[in-house]
Amino acid sequence: MSLRLITLLSDFGLSDSYVGVMKGAIAQINPALKVIDLTHNIPPQNIAAARFQLMSAFAYFPKGTVHIAVVDPGVGSVRRAIAVEFANGFLVAPDNGLLSGVLSQSPAIAAVELTKSNYWRTAEPSSTFHGRDIFAPIGAHLASGVSLNKVGQSIDPGTLVQLPLPEYRCDIDPIRGTGKVQGVIQMIDRFGNLITNIPGNVVRGKQWSVIAAGIQMPGCNTYGDLPPASLLALVGSHGWIEIGVNCGDASAKLELDYGSEITIILQDQVSNVDH
Amino acid sequence: MSLRLITLLSDFGLSDSYVGVMKGAIAQINPALKVIDLTHNIPPQNIAAARFQLMSAFAYFPKGTVHIAVVDPGVGSVRRAIAVEFANGFLVAPDNGLLSGVLSQSPAIAAVELTKSNYWRTAEPSSTFHGRDIFAPIGAHLASGVSLNKVGQSIDPGTLVQLPLPEYRCDIDPIRGTGKVQGVIQMIDRFGNLITNIPGNVVRGKQWSVIAAGIQMPGCNTYGDLPPASLLALVGSHGWIEIGVNCGDASAKLELDYGSEITIILQDQVSNVDH
Amino acid sequence: MSLRLITLLSDFGLSDSYVGVMKGAIAQINPALKVIDLTHNIPPQNIAAARFQLMSAFAYFPKGTVHIAVVDPGVGSVRRAIAVEFANGFLVAPDNGLLSGVLSQSPAIAAVELTKSNYWRTAEPSSTFHGRDIFAPIGAHLASGVSLNKVGQSIDPGTLVQLPLPEYRCDIDPIRGTGKVQGVIQMIDRFGNLITNIPGNVVRGKQWSVIAAGIQMPGCNTYGDLPPASLLALVGSHGWIEIGVNCGDASAKLELDYGSEITIILQDQVSNVDH
Repeated sequence: MSLRLITLLSDFGLSDSYVGVMKGAIAQINPALKVIDLTHNIPPQNIAAARFQLMSAFAYFPKGTVHIAVVDPGVGSVRRAIAVEFANGFLVAPDNGLLSGVLSQSPAIAAVELTKSNYWRTAEPSSTFHGRDIFAPIGAHLASGVSLNKVGQSIDPGTLVQLPLPEYRCDIDPIRGTGKVQGVIQMIDRFGNLITNIPGNVVRGKQWSVIAAGIQMPGCNTYGDLPPASLLALVGSHGWIEIGVNCGDASAKLELDYGSEITIILQDQVSNVDH
Repeated sequence: MSLRLITLLSDFGLSDSYVGVMKGAIAQINPALKVIDLTHNIPPQNIAAARFQLMSAFAYFPKGTVHIAVVDPGVGSVRRAIAVEFANGFLVAPDNGLLSGVLSQSPAIAAVELTKSNYWRTAEPSSTFHGRDIFAPIGAHLASGVSLNKVGQSIDPGTLVQLPLPEYRCDIDPIRGTGKVQGVIQMIDRFGNLITNIPGNVVRGKQWSVIAAGIQMPGCNTYGDLPPASLLALVGSHGWIEIGVNCGDASAKLELDYGSEITIILQDQVSNVDH
Repeated sequence: MSLRLITLLSDFGLSDSYVGVMKGAIAQINPALKVIDLTHNIPPQNIAAARFQLMSAFAYFPKGTVHIAVVDPGVGSVRRAIAVEFANGFLVAPDNGLLSGVLSQSPAIAAVELTKSNYWRTAEPSSTFHGRDIFAPIGAHLASGVSLNKVGQSIDPGTLVQLPLPEYRCDIDPIRGTGKVQGVIQMIDRFGNLITNIPGNVVRGKQWSVIAAGIQMPGCNTYGDLPPASLLALVGSHGWIEIGVNCGDASAKLELDYGSEITIILQDQVSNVDH
């Protein structure tokens, strides 16, 4: 078989050589493997942010890609190290909820606990850097064609740790299609766009607006629909409703944060906003 | 033909998975393609900074390299998406002036507007992430050997949006070769070096100095010509006159910014500076 | 022979295209070469930090890897440009102490001064960017199979500039094995972990604790040995004693910096700490 692609995601940052060393550990096993960085700037120990980025990226890689994700506050303790097979690829990670975004969108075909130390870099791994000593080598072996059941002991995918997304609530008139949807901000990106937990399909084919921080913003198709500096909402490239500013930073303008509540008003509903 | 190299430049930053997803979209088309990052830390929506970095890097890649540049405040609106062929390679970008630095140094051989959606990732691209849905796929096809005229409709390169660099002004005695050259700072790099819009050849073979922020600094060959912490000017690696500090940060020391004026004094001219 | 891997380390940051341009210069020589970034966020001109990262990463790459390291405050002045061969790989760098961490752990087999300009990008290199014009091209040639003695003039490895690590001091009872070890912090990583200059083997098989900033912290095996937010010490993945906080930032909590003193107490010694 041909080689599989590897991606890396971590909270290691780019100031130390941790990421480079993981790539070295992969190259020591198979120098022909190709590695793509998803991001290494996940805030330290922030499993929720890692969960979101991994879920957002997963569908955009070739079938069979091996994703290695290391945000691992429990490293060296009792949390399991796992590898999971999906229709679209493999995930190698600590079992701490990191994978649960992908799991919410795609069923696991099989899962193993990484107990076979002959596939690790060393049978005596560091107690603080399993990325180098366990996850990267396992990913390199999987990408080189080793099968999942060789690198660990089969476990029930139903036992994988879940980190569920907060649910959004719909209050929609079933006949007129009008109403409200309430959700929260689940991510703020580099541009200051506020990405909610409400999927874009709830507004498809409707007139809509968003209320957040006491301000009502129109539902648009793209940033350029309004003049620069205008607040607006749209269906973002991740598929979720997001709030942005044309050529600006919605996060700075609205002073909202992760978990802040937002309300979508569907169609010609008149909102009742305190200013 | 063998595969062409791809480079990526954007304002996506490295905290989200946007860049990784663009690489995934490329790998979905052709996993054998090699991708090099120019930079993804262009300040958000700053076309002028992107223009400079792209112009600075263009000559240092193998012939045929496909450069994908996405700083795209007009994404989803009426701005054109384009691909341009040069003697040294291809540029794929929004038509917003981003390419005009390269265009100022190298003529376009041909240009197309990216209208052929069968070469996109999807015929219904996101309205906010053409990097993933249009530019990366087009770049991947070009790098895999698809010809320019297949991926879009031919347009006149003369119609490409220009973002001209401010001009520098020479006031030089044609006989003695002495005089002044006035310009501005067009870029500040990571070291705090202030890169002007004056090409290095105006000082070749001459004694010269620079006046900026009311301070006169000698024209040198390299940082080490003066003791650490000394302000000096030299011809930088980009080919422009720049102001730097040996082992220090000229930007912090002089409190100058993009667009600040500087004057070059050629030969034995005596300057008249207010302190 | 098959191609060797290349790594890059620099203080160029990721906001400019300097790193991309070095990769372009490598690809112009041999587009098939594979390049891995160690880090480009070494603080500007900080040779000591670069020395540490290079030393930490060196052992984790395949035999024959060519490491190009460019932290080069003396660029364009009299410092030598060198390439050094080790059992495990090659280092290409300015001769300013950058390599001395690796040299402290692994003997040099041979060294050359990079005097053969036919292996540079140009015989007239920029006076400020030898990374692009000398180091990257030399690394690309070495990785493509050119032998060390072709790219420069042989020099005595004993003449390479050394930047010695501060020494740690042991005051240990030779019979009971108890006592003190005094050292300093040599690196602070992205997580705020304080990495000392004391190798982990001094505490092997012993009960131990660390005193720093007037606080005594237990010697543990991993972060999870204590509840979140607890200060603790352990043998880090680099092999040195380090101080960390479970799910937190020890650097912020203790307000210690590079060079701050720390003391290790071995076994059942009772410490005498001023609070």
